[in-house]
Amino acid sequence: MSRQPIPRFEDNYTEEAAQARRDFLLQQTGAALSHTGHYSLKASDVRNNTENFVGVVQMPVGVAGPVLVHGEHAQGWFYVPLATTEGTLVASYSRGMRIVSESGGVKVTVADDQMQRAPVFEFEDARAAARFVAWLQQSNGDIQREAEQTTRHGKLLHIQHWQVARMVYTRFNFYTADAAGQNMSGKATRAACQWILKHSPEAVTYFALSGAVETDKKHSHMNLVHSRGKRVIAETTLKREVLQRLARTTPETMFKQRQRSAVGAQLAGSAYSGPHSANGIAALFIATGQDEANVVESHAGFVFMDITPEGDLYFSVTLPSVICGTKGGGTGLPTQQECLKLLQCDGEGKAKKLAEIVGATVLAGDVSLLSAILADEWVSSHDAYGRNR
Amino acid sequence: MSRQPIPRFEDNYTEEAAQARRDFLLQQTGAALSHTGHYSLKASDVRNNTENFVGVVQMPVGVAGPVLVHGEHAQGWFYVPLATTEGTLVASYSRGMRIVSESGGVKVTVADDQMQRAPVFEFEDARAAARFVAWLQQSNGDIQREAEQTTRHGKLLHIQHWQVARMVYTRFNFYTADAAGQNMSGKATRAACQWILKHSPEAVTYFALSGAVETDKKHSHMNLVHSRGKRVIAETTLKREVLQRLARTTPETMFKQRQRSAVGAQLAGSAYSGPHSANGIAALFIATGQDEANVVESHAGFVFMDITPEGDLYFSVTLPSVICGTKGGGTGLPTQQECLKLLQCDGEGKAKKLAEIVGATVLAGDVSLLSAILADEWVSSHDAYGRNR
Amino acid sequence: MSRQPIPRFEDNYTEEAAQARRDFLLQQTGAALSHTGHYSLKASDVRNNTENFVGVVQMPVGVAGPVLVHGEHAQGWFYVPLATTEGTLVASYSRGMRIVSESGGVKVTVADDQMQRAPVFEFEDARAAARFVAWLQQSNGDIQREAEQTTRHGKLLHIQHWQVARMVYTRFNFYTADAAGQNMSGKATRAACQWILKHSPEAVTYFALSGAVETDKKHSHMNLVHSRGKRVIAETTLKREVLQRLARTTPETMFKQRQRSAVGAQLAGSAYSGPHSANGIAALFIATGQDEANVVESHAGFVFMDITPEGDLYFSVTLPSVICGTKGGGTGLPTQQECLKLLQCDGEGKAKKLAEIVGATVLAGDVSLLSAILADEWVSSHDAYGRNR
Amino acid sequence: MSRQPIPRFEDNYTEEAAQARRDFLLQQTGAALSHTGHYSLKASDVRNNTENFVGVVQMPVGVAGPVLVHGEHAQGWFYVPLATTEGTLVASYSRGMRIVSESGGVKVTVADDQMQRAPVFEFEDARAAARFVAWLQQSNGDIQREAEQTTRHGKLLHIQHWQVARMVYTRFNFYTADAAGQNMSGKATRAACQWILKHSPEAVTYFALSGAVETDKKHSHMNLVHSRGKRVIAETTLKREVLQRLARTTPETMFKQRQRSAVGAQLAGSAYSGPHSANGIAALFIATGQDEANVVESHAGFVFMDITPEGDLYFSVTLPSVICGTKGGGTGLPTQQECLKLLQCDGEGKAKKLAEIVGATVLAGDVSLLSAILADEWVSSHDAYGRNR
Repeated sequence: MSRQPIPRFEDNYTEEAAQARRDFLLQQTGAALSHTGHYSLKASDVRNNTENFVGVVQMPVGVAGPVLVHGEHAQGWFYVPLATTEGTLVASYSRGMRIVSESGGVKVTVADDQMQRAPVFEFEDARAAARFVAWLQQSNGDIQREAEQTTRHGKLLHIQHWQVARMVYTRFNFYTADAAGQNMSGKATRAACQWILKHSPEAVTYFALSGAVETDKKHSHMNLVHSRGKRVIAETTLKREVLQRLARTTPETMFKQRQRSAVGAQLAGSAYSGPHSANGIAALFIATGQDEANVVESHAGFVFMDITPEGDLYFSVTLPSVICGTKGGGTGLPTQQECLKLLQCDGEGKAKKLAEIVGATVLAGDVSLLSAILADEWVSSHDAYGRNR
Repeated sequence: MSRQPIPRFEDNYTEEAAQARRDFLLQQTGAALSHTGHYSLKASDVRNNTENFVGVVQMPVGVAGPVLVHGEHAQGWFYVPLATTEGTLVASYSRGMRIVSESGGVKVTVADDQMQRAPVFEFEDARAAARFVAWLQQSNGDIQREAEQTTRHGKLLHIQHWQVARMVYTRFNFYTADAAGQNMSGKATRAACQWILKHSPEAVTYFALSGAVETDKKHSHMNLVHSRGKRVIAETTLKREVLQRLARTTPETMFKQRQRSAVGAQLAGSAYSGPHSANGIAALFIATGQDEANVVESHAGFVFMDITPEGDLYFSVTLPSVICGTKGGGTGLPTQQECLKLLQCDGEGKAKKLAEIVGATVLAGDVSLLSAILADEWVSSHDAYGRNR
Repeated sequence: MSRQPIPRFEDNYTEEAAQARRDFLLQQTGAALSHTGHYSLKASDVRNNTENFVGVVQMPVGVAGPVLVHGEHAQGWFYVPLATTEGTLVASYSRGMRIVSESGGVKVTVADDQMQRAPVFEFEDARAAARFVAWLQQSNGDIQREAEQTTRHGKLLHIQHWQVARMVYTRFNFYTADAAGQNMSGKATRAACQWILKHSPEAVTYFALSGAVETDKKHSHMNLVHSRGKRVIAETTLKREVLQRLARTTPETMFKQRQRSAVGAQLAGSAYSGPHSANGIAALFIATGQDEANVVESHAGFVFMDITPEGDLYFSVTLPSVICGTKGGGTGLPTQQECLKLLQCDGEGKAKKLAEIVGATVLAGDVSLLSAILADEWVSSHDAYGRNR
Repeated sequence: MSRQPIPRFEDNYTEEAAQARRDFLLQQTGAALSHTGHYSLKASDVRNNTENFVGVVQMPVGVAGPVLVHGEHAQGWFYVPLATTEGTLVASYSRGMRIVSESGGVKVTVADDQMQRAPVFEFEDARAAARFVAWLQQSNGDIQREAEQTTRHGKLLHIQHWQVARMVYTRFNFYTADAAGQNMSGKATRAACQWILKHSPEAVTYFALSGAVETDKKHSHMNLVHSRGKRVIAETTLKREVLQRLARTTPETMFKQRQRSAVGAQLAGSAYSGPHSANGIAALFIATGQDEANVVESHAGFVFMDITPEGDLYFSVTLPSVICGTKGGGTGLPTQQECLKLLQCDGEGKAKKLAEIVGATVLAGDVSLLSAILADEWVSSHDAYGRNR
C-alpha cells in the first residue's frame, strides 16, 4: 500500500476539515471516530494548538478536595480538577487533601521562577571559548536589550555558561510572566544569539540554538539544581491525631518508611524521592491546559519530613521545575478554561497561584499514598510478622 | 470559610451525581462547567477510572502520519492520533513521519517486557539480610506459585535484590500481557510477600510493599538500566536525498549537532539524550487511554546515530521503559478505544504493537525537531556567521 | 627544544637504570631526585609495577586504631596503617575507631564479590541484536569454558546484557579470588569473546573489548547498583553514653544532621551519601598496595542510620564496589607487604578480610568527622543562635 | 583481648616516637615494619601531615614523557612523575605522550578555579527561608569581609543557594591561590557563618557548616556542573599519520569506538566519559603531594572528539574539578617537593601550571588506552569477524 496523505484544506481548522479527516480515517482504517467527533469546542478554537484536528479525547475529570492552601497567591479552599483514567487517583488525592486540611492546610512558597533556552557556541579552541565567556559577561546589557525586544512580558534574568572542550554551553534564563514561556524564551534567545553571532570578537565555528542543556521536555539533574519553571515548596505539619484518625498511621510510622524509601530512591537514582508527584501533576496539567509533556520536568524533586518536638509530622514537597502557565498553550480552550476558573486561576497574574495549587496537590497525594501503603501493611501483613519464626 | 465536602451519592457514577457536583462547584466557586459537562461517554463508563466525576476535558486530537512501520507486531502504514494542545506538535511529527517513511520506514523491536513492584525487607543486621537473600533465591518456586495465584495473565519472571545496610531492596519482575500491569504486579507481589513473611527463616524486622526501587511514576537510572515496561528500539536509515529534500539538512549536519547535544545531555544529567521523546509519548498516551503519569518513566532513553558507508544517516531511539497497555486503565473509554482502533491496537495481544508505534512516533518526532533546529539556523543565522569578523 | 627521550636499558629494572634516569632528569630539569632515590626496595621489585622507575615517593604512614572488628573474616582488634599527607586524618579515624570500639565494635559483611569486563557487540539491526542475546544466554556453558581456560582462580559468574540501538552492551562478571581481578577478567573475557565472535550465528558488525559499561576507573551509577569488587556493609550501634563522652554529641544530633545531609547529597547528585569514605579508602589502599585509582569506584555508597528503641544510634556504611586484593598489583612490594602483615592480610584467602577492614575504617572515619562537625558547631556557633534575634 | 592503645608522646613527631610505635606494633601483631621504617624524611617533617607516624610507604615512581604542553602556565616539554604500582601504566601514558607530542602537543586551558564549603541553614518555613536568601544576597559585602578576614590569600567569589523544604543549602565559592584550599575555605566560611547567624533577620532553627553540597571527597553531578577546584580543558589534534605509525589505528576507528563508549557511559551513569582519567590523576597526585582522596572529585569529566576537515582527530578532555595545589598538604615533603621541582611547579603561583600538566597527562593516557584497545582488537579479533558466518 502506498502512502495516503491525510486530507488538508486551505482553512484546515473547520468542522468540515475535521469531518473530512474522520471520513478519510474510517475509510483507511475502518475506525469510526464517532465519540472523538463529539465535542463542544469549535474546530477553529484549536488553530494554535492542534494541526490535523479530528476531534477530542474525552478525558474524564474528577474533582478532589477541597484543600486548604496558604500560599502567597492561592489562599483558601480549592476544589482541584484532576483529568485521569487511573481509578482511585482522585479518591486518594481527595483523602490526602482532607488530611492536610484538617491538620491546618498547606503552606506553599514559589522560591524561583524562570524559563530557559540553551544555545551552544563553538570556537577554535578552549582558550578562545574562555575569551568568549568573558566577552559574553561584559556584553550583558546589549544581549538583554536584543532579547527583550522580541517580547512584551519576558525579561532576561541571567545567562549561565559551561565550557566543555571548545564549546560554550549556555542557559539563557527568562522571567516569562503568566506563560510557561518556552516559545517566548526561544524567540528572545534566538534574537540575542543573532546579535552575539554578529558581534562576537571570537570566531564562532559552530552554533545551535539548543545545546540540550535547557533540558526541554526531559528530566535532568540540571533542572533539579537550577529551576526550569517554578520552584514550588509545599509544607504542612500533619497532626498526630489526624493521621491516626484519617490515615490509620502515626508520624513515627510515616517517618520510618520515609528513611527507607529515601535510600531506595538513592539506590534507584530516582528523579523524585517521594511517592508519586507525577500523578497529581499530570492530572492537573491536563485539566488546566498545560503542556502534558512538561510533566517529565515538573515531577522531579524532594520529599523531606521530620518529627516535630510536639510529636507531629512536618511533611514537605519541593518541586524545583514546575512548568505551568495560565496564558497560552491549551489554557484558553473551553473545558481547560473552565477548570482554570474552578481554581480562580483564569485572567492576569495567576501562574504562581496555579503553581501553588500544584504543590499543595502533590503534597496531599503523597501523604495519602504513603499512609495507604503503611495502613495496608499494618492490617494485612502484620499478622505474618509475629508468626514467622 | 469551613470545609464544604464534595457531594457524593450511593451510586456515585451517574449523570445526576455528576450534575450535582457541577452545580455544587458553580455555587462554591462561580465556575460553570458547561463545556466540561458536554460529552458522549456515560458517567457509568468511568466507574473504574475517575472518582467524583464531573465531566471531561476535551483534549484536541490531531492525526499525524501516516508512518510506515516495520515492527514484529506493527506492520504497514499508521495514522497516529496525538492528543495535544501544543501548536506545531502534530505538524512536526507528521513531517518526521514523512521523512522516515520516504526513507523506507521505521524498524521497531521490543527487546524486553516486564513490570515491577519492589518490596523492602529489613533484618537484625546485614548478615541476616545476606542469609535471607540466599533463602529467597532457593524459594523461587514457592514465591512464584504464590504470586501467580493472584493473576490469570501475570508471570513472575525473576526477583532482583540489593543489600543496603540491613535492608534487602527487591524488585519483583512480572510479565503482564496486555495490561501495563502495575496493579497486577502489586497484587501478586503482595501475595508473594505474605508467604515470604510467614516462611522466612530470618526474622523480618521491617517490611513495606514498596522500598521505592520500582520506581513507579518516577524517572530513575534504575529504569534506564532495567526496563520497567517495554524496551522499545526504533531504527531508520535516513536517506541523504530525503533529508535534503524534506528537511533541508544533511546527514553530516544532523550528526554534528548530535555530537554536541550528547555532551550537553551529559552535562545536564539528562534522562533522554535526544530532542523530545516526551511530546510524542504524552500525546499518544492520552489519546489511547494510557496512564499519563507514566510519561515520566517512558520518556527516558538514548538516541544513537551514525553515518553509513553510503552516506546516509542511521538514526535510532531506544526507550527502555515504555509503559503501555491495551487493556485496563483508560483504554476502554469510548474516545480512547476509538483511537486504539485507529491503530488496530484494540483487542487481544496488542500491547507490543502499541509500543512499537510509540517507538516509531518518537523517532519521527526527533528527526523532525532536530532537522528543524538545524534548518532554521541555516536560514536565519547563517548570514551572521559570515560577517562576524 | 626537541624531544629528549627518557633513557631505557635492556634490563630496565636495575638500580643503574634508575640512577641513569635520575641523572638524566637532573640534567634536563635541574631537579635532583635525592630523596626519591632513597629507598629499601630493589629496582627489580617493581618489574611488574612501574616502568621507567626512578625511585619512590615516601608517603608517610600513620597508624589508626585499634578498631574492634566483627567480620566473617576479620575478627578482633586491628591497627590500621593509613598512608596520607592530610593532617588530622589519622587522628580523626583513630578517634572514630575508639568510639565504635567502645560501643562494641563494627560488624562487617561482604555481600557480593565480582569483577567485570564489558565488551560491546554490534549488529545489523536491533532485531539481530535481540537474537544474539538469546543465543548468548543459550551458549553460557561454552562461553564459561572458554573464559575460564585462561585463569586458574577466576570463575565466570554471569553475563549481563543491555540493548541500545543495534548494540549489545554486556558485563561479564567474574569471581577473582584474592586478586582485585581486572586483568584476570579482561583476559578471560577476551578469550570468551574470540569464541563468541567465531560462533555467533548473527554477523557481528562491530566489536570492542570494552563498551565502557564496566566502568573501570570511573564512578558510575551502574557500580552503585551492580557491585564491581566487593559489596561491603559495616554496621555499629553507637552507644549514647559513648557518643556523649567521646564525641560530645548525641544520637539525636547525629541523626538530625544526617537527615539534612542526605537531602544535600540528593541535591548534589553525590556518589556517596556520607561524610568522607574516600579519605580512609585512599589511605588504606596506598598503604596496602592497592591500585589507588580504584578509590573512585570504591568510595561510592550509602550511609544509613536510625535511632534504636534503646536510644542508641545504629550507624551503617554500605560500599557496593570496594576493589581490593591481597595478591597482585603493589601488594607484594616491601612496605606494602608489611602493612598487609600488620593487618594479618598477607597470604592466601585474605581479600575479603581486607575488604572488611576497609569497611570498618570508613565507618569509623564517618562517625568521627560527623561528630566533629557537630561538636564544633555546638561550641563555637551555638552562642550565635541564642542571640540572633 | 582488651584495647591496647597506640603509644603517644609529648612530642609525637620524633624518630623515637615512630620507633616506639613500630616496636609496639611488632609486639602486638608480629609485623616488623623494617622497610616502612626506612626513609630519608624526618619524623618532624610530617607534623602537619600524619599523626601516629610509623614510617613511609615506598610508592614507586616512574617517569612518563616527555610531553609537549602549550598551557597558559605550563609551556614546553615535561617529564611527568607517576607514583603507581599498576604495571603498564607509566609505559602507556608515556606512549600517549609521544603520540600527542608528535602531533604538536597538548593545549591546556584552566577555565575556572574555585573551592567551596557548603553550610546549610534552616528556618521556620520555606517562606522565611526565601526571605533569608534575599537578605543573604544583600549582605554580600559584609559576608565577604568577615570571610576574608581569616585568610591572606583567599577571596570569596560568590555564594550559591538552593532551597529545599525550609532549608537553604549554600555553596561559598573561594579563590584560594596556590593551595587546594579546603581548609582555607572551611575556615573562612565558618567565620562568615558566625556573622550570618548573629545578624540574620530570620531566626535560624538549624545550622551546620556542611549541608553536603560542596561535595568534599565525593564525586557529584554538582561538581561536574559547578567546578570544585580547577576546570581543566586539554586539547590536541592527533595527526592521522602519527596515529597510524605510533598507535596502529586511525581517526575513524578511534571516533567510531568513541561513539559507542559514549552511549555505554550514559547507560552506566558514568562520572567520566573517557577511558581512565583516574589513573593518571592518582599517580600524579601521589607523586606531587596532593590529597589522594581528591582523585574522586578530580576524575570526573568529558571526553569530546571530532574528525577535522583535514582528516585528523581533534581529541579533548574536560576535567571540571581538578583539585590540586602547590602549597600545603603533602607538597612540602622531601620526595613530593622533588617531584614538583621536576615539573618546575615548586614555589609561588604554580597551582594552575600543575593543573595544566594534569590535564595533558590525562589526555595522553586516554589516547594511549583507547588506541591500545583498538589495536588489540584489530590484531586478534579481526580474523574472527570475517569468518563468523
